[in-house]
This record gives sequence, C-alpha cells and structure tokens, in this order.
Amino acid sequence: MALRFALVIEPVGSDDSRSDFADTFRTIDPSAPALSVGELSTQRGDGIFESIGVVDGHPQETQAHLERLAHSAEICDLPAPNLEQWRQAVTIAAGHAPQQGEGVIKLILSRGVEHGPAPTAWVTAAGAADNTAVREQGVRVVTLDRGYGIDTPASAPWLLLGAKTLSYAVNMAALREARRRGADDAIFVTSDGFVLEAPTASLIVRIDGRFVTPAPNGGILHGTTQLSLFSHLESEGFETGYATLPTTALRDADAAWLVSSVRLAAPITAIDDVVFRVDAGLTASMNRYLLSPRD
Amino acid sequence: MALRFALVIEPVGSDDSRSDFADTFRTIDPSAPALSVGELSTQRGDGIFESIGVVDGHPQETQAHLERLAHSAEICDLPAPNLEQWRQAVTIAAGHAPQQGEGVIKLILSRGVEHGPAPTAWVTAAGAADNTAVREQGVRVVTLDRGYGIDTPASAPWLLLGAKTLSYAVNMAALREARRRGADDAIFVTSDGFVLEAPTASLIVRIDGRFVTPAPNGGILHGTTQLSLFSHLESEGFETGYATLPTTALRDADAAWLVSSVRLAAPITAIDDVVFRVDAGLTASMNRYLLSPRD
Repeated sequence: MALRFALVIEPVGSDDSRSDFADTFRTIDPSAPALSVGELSTQRGDGIFESIGVVDGHPQETQAHLERLAHSAEICDLPAPNLEQWRQAVTIAAGHAPQQGEGVIKLILSRGVEHGPAPTAWVTAAGAADNTAVREQGVRVVTLDRGYGIDTPASAPWLLLGAKTLSYAVNMAALREARRRGADDAIFVTSDGFVLEAPTASLIVRIDGRFVTPAPNGGILHGTTQLSLFSHLESEGFETGYATLPTTALRDADAAWLVSSVRLAAPITAIDDVVFRVDAGLTASMNRYLLSPRD
Repeated sequence: MALRFALVIEPVGSDDSRSDFADTFRTIDPSAPALSVGELSTQRGDGIFESIGVVDGHPQETQAHLERLAHSAEICDLPAPNLEQWRQAVTIAAGHAPQQGEGVIKLILSRGVEHGPAPTAWVTAAGAADNTAVREQGVRVVTLDRGYGIDTPASAPWLLLGAKTLSYAVNMAALREARRRGADDAIFVTSDGFVLEAPTASLIVRIDGRFVTPAPNGGILHGTTQLSLFSHLESEGFETGYATLPTTALRDADAAWLVSSVRLAAPITAIDDVVFRVDAGLTASMNRYLLSPRD
C-alpha cells in the first residue's frame, strides 16, 4: 500500500532526557525525494528497521519493537537509539495510519550519508494489505537452506544474524524462490538441519499440544508477535516453549503457523510435502487476540 | 570523498537499440534529496551496484563492470540492464570525475519504489581517497568466517552469493571487526576452511612463483581488477590460475595482495599471524599497470 505519511527524525543521544522531541521531527511528503544518493541505507543496506502493526490507529507492541531496534543497533555498532524519541515518532505516525482497520508503521535507522556526521532516521505510516484470506486459508511453505550451521551465529557476530538489518535482499530472494516453487512463503533451515524462521515471520508449531518456536540463538530474530502470542496462549492455559528444532521434528507437529506483525497468524497448510490440517477455530482466536489493542 | 556528480537513469529494456539515451538521464545535485523513503534499495538493500575506478578522467574496465552488473541483475531477478544506456551514463559521469588523478564512478540499480512500476537507477562520480600509502605499505588482514560451506552457493542461489547486491551490511561489519582486531582488512573464509575474498576486494596469492586467486564458484564475485591484473601478469610471462584454496595454503604463499577497483593492489603484510614480505618492486609495477588506461 502506498505510504500515507513520513517523518524524518534527527536522532539524538540515548541520554537526552527532554520530554518533548517535536523539534527533532520533520514531516515530509512520503512520495517526494527525501534521501540523497549518498545514503548508506541505499548504497549498502547499512541500517536497521522495524515494522509495527497498527489496528484502528493503535500501534501494537511498540515497546517490544523499540527494544528490538535497540538490540539491532547494538549488533550493528550504530549509536543507541533514544527510545523515548522513537516512541513519540511512533505516536505521531499512528495518528496518520488508518484509524479504522489495519496499517503498518516502519522505523528506519540508517548509518547516515557516507562521510556524513550522523545517522539518518525516519518513520513511515501506510495502510496494510487485506490479510483476511491468508489468515483463514493459510500458506504453503517450502524449506530453504539459510546456508549457516546452527552454531555459526554465536561464533561470527559480524554476520549480523540477530539484527533486523536493511540488508534484506536474501530474504526477498527466498520469497521469490518459494513462489517459483509454487509455494506462498519459505522457512529457512540451517545447513545442518535445524529450523530457523521465515524470511519475514516467525514459525510456531504445535507438537503434542505444546506450542514451540525455534530458540532465538543469535541466528533468529526474536519475534515480537510470537512473544505476544505465547503470553496469550499461556494465559489461556496452553504450554509454550523454545527449542532447537531439527527439521525432522516438523513431521511430529499437528499444526503450524507463521506469525508476523502485519499478516499476524497465518496457518501453514504444508511444509514441503508434509500437509498440515488448519485448526480454524484456534487460528481465528489467535488473530482475534492479535487484532485487539496490545502494548 | 563527497560526491561531485549524480545522474538519475530511467532504465529501459535491454532490447532498446536507440543510439542516444540522453533523454533517459537527469542530472541532479548529488547532495540534495533525490530518493523517496519508499525506495527498496533503502528499505531492503534490494538492488545491485558496481564501483568503477577512474584515472585522469578515464573509467577503467567499463565493459567488465557492465557485464558483472548484468550478471548480478540476473541472479537477483532484476530486469536485464541495457548496457549501452549504462555505458553512456558512465561516459557522462567520467566527465565529472576528477580529470587529473583518481576518482570513482558508482552504478546503482534498485528494484525501485515499493509497489512502483519500475526499477530506479543512478550513477555517481566522486574523487577517490589517496591510496598511495596503502599501495606501498600494505595491509594487515585477519580471516573471518563467512558462515557458509564451500558448496553452499551452488546449491542455494537465493543466498545471492555471486551477486554484488546493495545488502552489504555484513561486508561493512566484517571491516569493523577487522579494525577491532587491530587489522586493516579482512579475508572471508568458508566454515569448512577455504579462502574466499575480502569484503570489498579480491585476494591474489603467489605460491611457487604462480599467481593464484580463489575460484569464483558462485560464492565469490569475479573481480574485475583481478581479471585485468591476471591478463597483465600473463602478458609479462607469469603463470596465473584459479584454485579452491584451503586456508592452510596461505602458509605456502610468499606474497599476497588485495586488489580492487579503487584501492588497486594493496600488498598484504600479514594474514592473522602469518607475516608476508612485501614485494615492493612487483607491487609498484602492478599499480603502474592498474593506473594506466584500461578497457
């Protein structure tokens, strides 16, 4: 969906404790030229981002997204973001997202203009695509090798595997490969046979009545939607947990979902040649929760 | 160095055979806002690039860079670039690079604005940093795990390992890690112990009088400077070749260089704890060749 709003942020230090950051914000026309060609985000995908779901004007789980932004900044040696400044920018952007129905707010923190003095940053707001059908009918997915061993992320932090960086070309290529294979989405697996995550979503499987997601071990983004959904499932009396999941464990699951901030819970109908039954009642209940205001 | 010139290109089909593409070019102020925040290059590092060295106004090895741009486009499912259009843009940019001394022209082809109709593209020109000292005194390098096995690129093309994409955050993080370790640059190695390339350069080693570079097997960019230098070395009577080089082979080398389009040939003084003698005479001769007009 076309961008409805964009706000350029002049990033301040994380220790700046002023109460109002309005004078560090500048609203721009989201379709007008705004960034110079010297931007490192555009030259080298050198920056980080977050996508926040918006429901009826309410940004979902803002705090969790801000904390992940800070975590990504640390991994990428970017200056620590001032979370209160970003929170105020999110609040303004939310006022320009659709006030009825769904939207998305994106936060972007770039290393800045090459040889420039400081990072650049901006926030956008847009309406979200209608995901009703995919939440009900689900997605077919294929597994794709992410190329790494399960132990690689911990020993090679320069691979930035736990950060949500702007260097997303591989994630996009994996989605194209999935579609070439007649599927809707992909699940990355390690080269030594463990399940990771989807290019733009977390994986949750149900095994023996327990909801399990691959353990975030540095190679997986800790999913904000997965975290929120696990706390909901626990409050409903379900058992949840993290595990190092071999791909063979997928055959033991009786249901699976891809969950993310905007598409929310999409039931999986097949992983490669393993077919899953969609638990329609539970999936609908998950999405009702995810569409309720969450902080 | 600050950008001196920027040209926005309206990409045309590869079969467009008009003789003059001037009306598809638009000169812009390189430091002014030019790209919208919806640009996929900036949102997802979703695009490709080339950096062409310029000496006394002459762009070096333009054809090899254009061919690699086309190869990267193919890997990334981008529309095939019209190479004659890009060549004309390079010629114009070269006229705005320094006409005495060294410069750099960058070509960028982005997937375009999200939900937009077409790719976006631009070319920039700038002066180059003074690399005289590093060409004489050389660089200390450390090896860093690239995380992949040697056979991964061929079996997982969605990892885009043979393409020069804008998703360069890992390359930049590797350079920061090298500096943290007290080195000047890095050499990526596979997780199963083979030598690849530097984050922004190719590696050439001399073993028993023969010049060898790691075989481009899908996981390594085919270096335009390495190719050019090999043909020069062959014309001087030296033997050159490609090999699958285990990291242990580095101990058999008596000299090594990182070569790239702008820094040219930088002799390596150490790889981890293995010290190399700089062959000053040969290195100077390499750089004299690389600074001569090349097509």
